[in-house]
Amino acid sequence: MITNTTKHETLLQEAIRALHTRTFFTAFSENPLPEIYGETADSEGKARFEANLHQPFTGLQQGEPQAWAGQEESPYLQQPLGITYPYFEPEILIQRAANAFREWRKTAPADRAGLLVETLERVKNRFFEIAYATMHTTGQAFMMSFQASGPHAADRALEAIAAGLEEQTRFPGQASWEKPQGKYTLKLQKTWQPVPKGVALVIGCSTFPTWNTVPGMYASLVTGNPVIVKPHPKAVLPIAIFVATVQQVLAENNLNPLICQLAVDPADRLIAKELAEHPQVKLIDYTGSPAFGNYLENIPGKTVFTEKAGVNSVILDSMPDLDKVLQNLAFSVSLYSGQMCTAPQNFFIPATGVQVNGEKIPYATVTQKLAEAITNLVNNPKAGPHVLGAIQNAATGQRVKDAATGHGKILLSAGAINHPQFAGARVCAPVLYEVEARDKEIYQQELFGPIALVIKTSDTHESIAIAKELAETNGAISCAAYTVDPEIKEKIKDEMSLAGTPVSFNLTGSIYVNQNAGFSDFHVTGGNPAGNASFTNPEFVIKRFIWVGFREPAA
Amino acid sequence: MITNTTKHETLLQEAIRALHTRTFFTAFSENPLPEIYGETADSEGKARFEANLHQPFTGLQQGEPQAWAGQEESPYLQQPLGITYPYFEPEILIQRAANAFREWRKTAPADRAGLLVETLERVKNRFFEIAYATMHTTGQAFMMSFQASGPHAADRALEAIAAGLEEQTRFPGQASWEKPQGKYTLKLQKTWQPVPKGVALVIGCSTFPTWNTVPGMYASLVTGNPVIVKPHPKAVLPIAIFVATVQQVLAENNLNPLICQLAVDPADRLIAKELAEHPQVKLIDYTGSPAFGNYLENIPGKTVFTEKAGVNSVILDSMPDLDKVLQNLAFSVSLYSGQMCTAPQNFFIPATGVQVNGEKIPYATVTQKLAEAITNLVNNPKAGPHVLGAIQNAATGQRVKDAATGHGKILLSAGAINHPQFAGARVCAPVLYEVEARDKEIYQQELFGPIALVIKTSDTHESIAIAKELAETNGAISCAAYTVDPEIKEKIKDEMSLAGTPVSFNLTGSIYVNQNAGFSDFHVTGGNPAGNASFTNPEFVIKRFIWVGFREPAA
Repeated sequence: MITNTTKHETLLQEAIRALHTRTFFTAFSENPLPEIYGETADSEGKARFEANLHQPFTGLQQGEPQAWAGQEESPYLQQPLGITYPYFEPEILIQRAANAFREWRKTAPADRAGLLVETLERVKNRFFEIAYATMHTTGQAFMMSFQASGPHAADRALEAIAAGLEEQTRFPGQASWEKPQGKYTLKLQKTWQPVPKGVALVIGCSTFPTWNTVPGMYASLVTGNPVIVKPHPKAVLPIAIFVATVQQVLAENNLNPLICQLAVDPADRLIAKELAEHPQVKLIDYTGSPAFGNYLENIPGKTVFTEKAGVNSVILDSMPDLDKVLQNLAFSVSLYSGQMCTAPQNFFIPATGVQVNGEKIPYATVTQKLAEAITNLVNNPKAGPHVLGAIQNAATGQRVKDAATGHGKILLSAGAINHPQFAGARVCAPVLYEVEARDKEIYQQELFGPIALVIKTSDTHESIAIAKELAETNGAISCAAYTVDPEIKEKIKDEMSLAGTPVSFNLTGSIYVNQNAGFSDFHVTGGNPAGNASFTNPEFVIKRFIWVGFREPAA
Repeated sequence: MITNTTKHETLLQEAIRALHTRTFFTAFSENPLPEIYGETADSEGKARFEANLHQPFTGLQQGEPQAWAGQEESPYLQQPLGITYPYFEPEILIQRAANAFREWRKTAPADRAGLLVETLERVKNRFFEIAYATMHTTGQAFMMSFQASGPHAADRALEAIAAGLEEQTRFPGQASWEKPQGKYTLKLQKTWQPVPKGVALVIGCSTFPTWNTVPGMYASLVTGNPVIVKPHPKAVLPIAIFVATVQQVLAENNLNPLICQLAVDPADRLIAKELAEHPQVKLIDYTGSPAFGNYLENIPGKTVFTEKAGVNSVILDSMPDLDKVLQNLAFSVSLYSGQMCTAPQNFFIPATGVQVNGEKIPYATVTQKLAEAITNLVNNPKAGPHVLGAIQNAATGQRVKDAATGHGKILLSAGAINHPQFAGARVCAPVLYEVEARDKEIYQQELFGPIALVIKTSDTHESIAIAKELAETNGAISCAAYTVDPEIKEKIKDEMSLAGTPVSFNLTGSIYVNQNAGFSDFHVTGGNPAGNASFTNPEFVIKRFIWVGFREPAA
């Protein structure tokens, strides 16, 4: 029943190869162009998105629900979307998943992988609908909504499928084991199976409802585990479309659609803990706050993959062109109003200034130019709104306002920004504060949203030492560093590697520290408290199943 | 300085290939024969072992100790060995390991692997000394002492080195990432590093002081982590010889010998907790009791590999030849007096009996024949003592005596066994009790030592259900099953696989469920509470380091 089996196999082989070359690879175009996705894809996708509004979402194959629940609001309209989703008690969801387990684990890994690739091919036809759904739940600008929730998420899902297939077929299904014993030979016939762990739970976040959810979802599915997807209650629709598509493909292939279920929080309570603590739930993927992530990591008997918060650093030491650097960083700070896990927060600048083309540029000049670069970007009506997007959560907007006190000297305060398209949008320009290296209590935690801090250090060595220490103690997901000094560069690599933090050096132009490429950049590999999601190194998939061997005398 | 570099590389490539074919492979002969190990190897090894007695062990390169400590006793002589080892405070050991970290992590994975193979080649020359040391600490008979602590342990160590090298070189050191952007191409130069996690601790057990210690020790070392080996205080010498050899090879290669240290408990306290809880200790390998293993697994911020207890089942359903089956099982029960983690404990036999060549043999006959088979083996003076060995710990001997009450009907009680060679040996024949399926509180926990139970079930389906449930709740490391019925066999595979338990079917002759072959049989892969050691699947090595990437615009 799966169509294009050969095509899927070829794609999986290419994807596995890409995982190992780590060169550029994508299976889904990130350009939302008519010549790629069709002339009517955008308008149809928008219409499909709008048709969901103020309606029950009926695309799932989960049967008659116990209730309908939905709490989404558009950050652009600051109005409820009015979409409701089928609600089932956690116990029911888990029993249904457990019932579907046998059927799914008995499906061969290669068949599971083929089916899952088919779901991505189908989802591709809904990228525009998903883009509008993402925009009006997360506040991302349209382009990011399209790219992150559509092609980039699908690439990450494909990466998980490919890695899962590779790991499950890494050891032979069977082998003849023959041990010479002098006069005779002991002969055993041996077989091995990758055995899935059981019911998997994937808990989504409000800012990247598909990009951060599909890796765990597809990794658990490809390794044979039934999955319950529990999105953030404020960002359900984008991932509901993925789940609906998976269910559709399962059903068409005569498999139980409940192998992948959507779980929503009812209006009056949150069900994530109840699901997570259930003894039948063996695997948990989570993106969100450190407090809840730490709680999940400490539930005994679970295999947990987390992406929590990071305090991301920028180390400014030396460079050929300061303006290019600051333009790049202004973009990184402003992109989706700092609501990315990879957004930079702490800018370490030596009190003695930075070396630019051999010349020392004073500290005050650098900070002033950084503030100007941000202002220029956000005030550019052709760029600003499309970079900033909107603020997902009103609490983030409040945090930006609250940051005005107790966060050091104000270099840039929150200015009113009008969105050209959505008058009621919750928009906020980045704020920038200046603190001393000793003010660690101010800058040591993640200040989620468009809040950046300049930290005056005695020299680059102190910048590195603090960036490393913060990553080790409070986590970090990215680091940007600018230096033309090979020794400093080596030191940054060495120190940040021990803190488990990837470093982007000397980025200028149109590539940014926030960006993270499927099949090439490892993401949150577990070296610091930011989490252990590990998209996608082998750990991300092999912890979802166990190897079991059988042996018997050869016939 | 490493000799035989090419030879080591070839061996590593062969070992990596063997890991993937899972066919028979060994790098160290298990036969302690003069034509293999040299005419004088045995007598010289024995003399070297004896020269250690009642002396400080001076083979280590750890400098002047703070004290000397040693508590070993021979189960064969029931006399102290009188060997003392250099004692250092945990804080000193950890600081020295931390100081050695940089040097070791800066050594390339392939160089680390080569050095570690060299250590095994050197240890090979001490296999006989290690064998006598193992015999007189664990109570294993000579042949098992030689095989398990020498060649089999070295094979497991080689397996860990090979797997560690493979995983660390699985992704490229660098790649050019070129993303087409329409009119131009974004070009990034990317590099990746496997970054070791930090100080590793390996806590050994009293029964298999090298076999259960070297996998974690070598897995941590090959992935760049400095290692502190903390043996069981009653079984230090065998692993002290390994550590001394590693230090020797490190020093000869101008590396800090403190990359691998021996830690011993002083006479008045145990230091394992102090070491394990230290914030600088990131990796822990442990073999021993479930209570301590569970404690270690729950220390936050550690990566922990455990092998705890298992309740191993034998499922008797049908077979062509009952006597051959029972002879095989009698051996498995008696081998090293049931002190193996893979030893069978619970024999599930249907009340209606078992099918033998189409004929139903009554339950009572089967149990009686099982008791007889054990008696015949242990009372055979040419076989018994060499199979049983001695009881490592006096508490085990006491447990066997205590088992006489409250463990059901006695089928076989502990008989006195005289050891032909060591009159004072702590020897004990297996005891066998008969209980009902409902008496779960009797048979649900591991009864360490030569204690076996026959459990009368209503049929094989009940046997399977209980064996599975016990494995899921209390852990299991092995399972033996005898059936000629393909459906029953498939059911056993399916159910036991969900309980993470490997199954040996229909073993007779000279291959036993207790035995576990390096490069072929996965060991304790994490599917049940017996532990997650995972010798050696990729999980066993990849959790010891993290992947960190760096990128910058291409020049």
